[in-house]
Amino acid sequence: MPAETAYTELIRRSKELGLIHSCSAVLGWDHQTYMPPQGGTLRGEQLAFLASLAHQKLTDPQVGEWLATVEASDLVQDAESDAAANIRELRRAYNRATKIPPALVEELARVTTEAQQVWEHAKKTNDYPSFQPLLQRVIELKREEADAVGYQEHRYNALLEEYEPGTTVAELQALFATLTRELAAWVQKIVAAPRQPHTGILTREFPIDRQKVFAESAAAALGFNFAAGRLDTTAHPFCSGFGPGDCRITTRYNPRFFNEAFFGVLHETGHAMYEQGLPTEQFGTPLGAACSFGIHESQSRLWENQVGRSRAFWEHFFPRLQQTFPMALADVSQSDFYFAINAVQPSFIRVEADEVTYNLHIALRFELELALLSGDLSTGDLPGAWKERFQALFGLIVPDDARGCLQDIHWSFGGIGYFPTYTLGNLYAAQLMAAAKRDCPSLDDDFRRGEFGPLRQWLKTAIYRHGQRYQAGELCRRATGFPLSPQPFLAYLTEKFGPLYGVC
Amino acid sequence: MPAETAYTELIRRSKELGLIHSCSAVLGWDHQTYMPPQGGTLRGEQLAFLASLAHQKLTDPQVGEWLATVEASDLVQDAESDAAANIRELRRAYNRATKIPPALVEELARVTTEAQQVWEHAKKTNDYPSFQPLLQRVIELKREEADAVGYQEHRYNALLEEYEPGTTVAELQALFATLTRELAAWVQKIVAAPRQPHTGILTREFPIDRQKVFAESAAAALGFNFAAGRLDTTAHPFCSGFGPGDCRITTRYNPRFFNEAFFGVLHETGHAMYEQGLPTEQFGTPLGAACSFGIHESQSRLWENQVGRSRAFWEHFFPRLQQTFPMALADVSQSDFYFAINAVQPSFIRVEADEVTYNLHIALRFELELALLSGDLSTGDLPGAWKERFQALFGLIVPDDARGCLQDIHWSFGGIGYFPTYTLGNLYAAQLMAAAKRDCPSLDDDFRRGEFGPLRQWLKTAIYRHGQRYQAGELCRRATGFPLSPQPFLAYLTEKFGPLYGVC
Repeated sequence: MPAETAYTELIRRSKELGLIHSCSAVLGWDHQTYMPPQGGTLRGEQLAFLASLAHQKLTDPQVGEWLATVEASDLVQDAESDAAANIRELRRAYNRATKIPPALVEELARVTTEAQQVWEHAKKTNDYPSFQPLLQRVIELKREEADAVGYQEHRYNALLEEYEPGTTVAELQALFATLTRELAAWVQKIVAAPRQPHTGILTREFPIDRQKVFAESAAAALGFNFAAGRLDTTAHPFCSGFGPGDCRITTRYNPRFFNEAFFGVLHETGHAMYEQGLPTEQFGTPLGAACSFGIHESQSRLWENQVGRSRAFWEHFFPRLQQTFPMALADVSQSDFYFAINAVQPSFIRVEADEVTYNLHIALRFELELALLSGDLSTGDLPGAWKERFQALFGLIVPDDARGCLQDIHWSFGGIGYFPTYTLGNLYAAQLMAAAKRDCPSLDDDFRRGEFGPLRQWLKTAIYRHGQRYQAGELCRRATGFPLSPQPFLAYLTEKFGPLYGVC
Repeated sequence: MPAETAYTELIRRSKELGLIHSCSAVLGWDHQTYMPPQGGTLRGEQLAFLASLAHQKLTDPQVGEWLATVEASDLVQDAESDAAANIRELRRAYNRATKIPPALVEELARVTTEAQQVWEHAKKTNDYPSFQPLLQRVIELKREEADAVGYQEHRYNALLEEYEPGTTVAELQALFATLTRELAAWVQKIVAAPRQPHTGILTREFPIDRQKVFAESAAAALGFNFAAGRLDTTAHPFCSGFGPGDCRITTRYNPRFFNEAFFGVLHETGHAMYEQGLPTEQFGTPLGAACSFGIHESQSRLWENQVGRSRAFWEHFFPRLQQTFPMALADVSQSDFYFAINAVQPSFIRVEADEVTYNLHIALRFELELALLSGDLSTGDLPGAWKERFQALFGLIVPDDARGCLQDIHWSFGGIGYFPTYTLGNLYAAQLMAAAKRDCPSLDDDFRRGEFGPLRQWLKTAIYRHGQRYQAGELCRRATGFPLSPQPFLAYLTEKFGPLYGVC
């Protein structure tokens, strides 16, 4: 078979897989938003059917033959070509899917389904011992998965590859070493700072219907295209890009806490604009898909924090916010509000963490899951290790496992290797924003006028349009001129929190 | 291969097809309810992919071999057995799917997609000539379809078989001959009757939020299980049973017309309770699927009209309705309300028709589509033929084609043979209700107390639990003791409308 034909067949198959995944995405969205309580069993069967169909179509031996034919041809000689990028990513997906034995896939599905149920109950009842045997089993299976996939240096690299291809334990360890040292110092300084924000203004009454209108108007102003997407309500907010023309985001409203829905919507809007900005004509192929979990998270964090927690952003939005919530905010100044939404406060829960402490939560998890996977840490010793390291990093004593090692769902679904992508997202976001401001010096002025088109345009050029043409590190280098570094993020913290708290 | 193995494989394949269809149903529901405007292209591709997958899996030559193996075995000797019913219906589906050439399927899809778009515009602009060439093409293709499927006596029988297997043109002609004669006489009597209802009370202000609450409470009282379903809003109301545990209904609210949403919800609730009552364990096989379009419609009509427009029903609900809409109904008596919701008024639009005139609308369409298919009527002559027959049946002059032969979507999507199932539904509904009342003499008393469980239980036993075990005619005979007849329906009209209008 000529290489051109093999490539055409591969692209056709890839697009078919894209359609199957997009069907699953619709079913998954409905599951979280509108599905009635008794619909769960059928939905599980539907999703399992589609997952199995996709797995069959990906692991089809013909796919392996097509890949080999194209890889041996001229088509991929130019590493910059469309074909080279598509083949690189299809090969990666094919290898993962074919190397993991079906029995292991099934066992992982079975165990993680049970583990999630047990975890949910264990978290509610602060009962780590009930979860431990399942976590133990998940880790054993993830070791088997890593061994099946193959890796260099560290088993964890095989798992990391699922979320952040091209990134290694060694790189992450270097990043986290710097971050941990610098952030722990920041926490100490800020906790001791004489100036502290009045965060009570954020826990006044914020009627939900008004929050909804305000959040939607902000999402639209940033650039979320509501003709090609929706905002709905769920218990656990998410963004799901079905494909061209349809991207759904969700949030949850707390009538007595402003931050939860609003910054959640900005976060999901960042994810969504990336999905909405991917090249439509490449849908279903790697060139039409988001680069990595870390880059995806960089987009949500950039709009949530770099933009949405900036002074310039609120110069535009605060007068509108005051009009929307006169009861809560009539007596609040813009600078007090700005300080409050940027409050830094060491706390036990990752998802509630501020910009300074957030990455310390991730550093802790990365360190522990690495030790769990290698066997240096046993699941029996996890709660103790968590408490010990938490105290060292945050200076706080963890009161119970529910607010400790049981707080996150990730390990129960087998998402070992997932957490670091949150920190990568924060670092990429800061580095991208610094580069965008370098390239477009008027961005802050734009924000003050409620104008976000120039930043979006910069991101489209730097990130969105490339899909998976480059791996994350290379994409960052091309977009910013430099490989990923913690320095832009640390410089951002210094510039922002130094003056706010009167520390340096 | 042993027949048992072949049968097991067939059932497995059938269940797989059931899952694919249920995925399509979720996507279709979302399309009508929440999909953003730009999501249409992707949704079309997703649905086309699933339809093509289902077609492949159904027309797989193995299915033909399995069928032949089972059909030649003892498994189907007992015509009453599960296997006999499943094989009968799988054979029918397989034959239809394999006999129609793929090129014809594609051409039908292409032409009907275009025809629906053109029809929508033609209806808006009252422009039949723009639609005529497409209708012409649809009819030609439906002739080809009928010829490919094969038939006895009349081509139309091949199309009918898609909606109402086992029913024939000859039977329908006999039914409609009686109905047309009797109903036309009823119309004349009622139009001339001295007593007439005050229908203006139904077009007062009915706030939408209150309509929603009231309709939901009525649907729940009838027996719609909201833990296994939802009610949403759409432009074109429908019921979609995804499968066990999940059935969605929709309606549309008119703030100045009570009937539209309320009776629409009762109608869809009737469809939905059938879906919710099908045997869960048979999901995906013929024994777990609704019997026919006519029987499905009988369930909606039974709850909408036989129950929802009965005096006993409103003895329970009217006081609650008055409380819900005090502004609109404080000065209205229960008997005036009851008369108003049972107003008979010849009109041009089928979907707005009352119980007496509705089947005349269907008689007209059946007669004309039969003539179109046979070639006795040309598409060019359709508007004239419509007007002529309409005047003969209703005594009204059709003012334009938008209120004439352009009003329904059915012909544009190729649904020739669909209309008669509406009348079959009305007739089955009356015959079933008469039998239910014979078997449970206290039903009217139950309704007066807002108690609908006994009727639901009767329907579960008579209809729901059988799935497609029997064809519609046989199901009716077993449920009621008699073959389908127009007499129960005509007796119902006499008993209800005679006293109401003071005619006989």
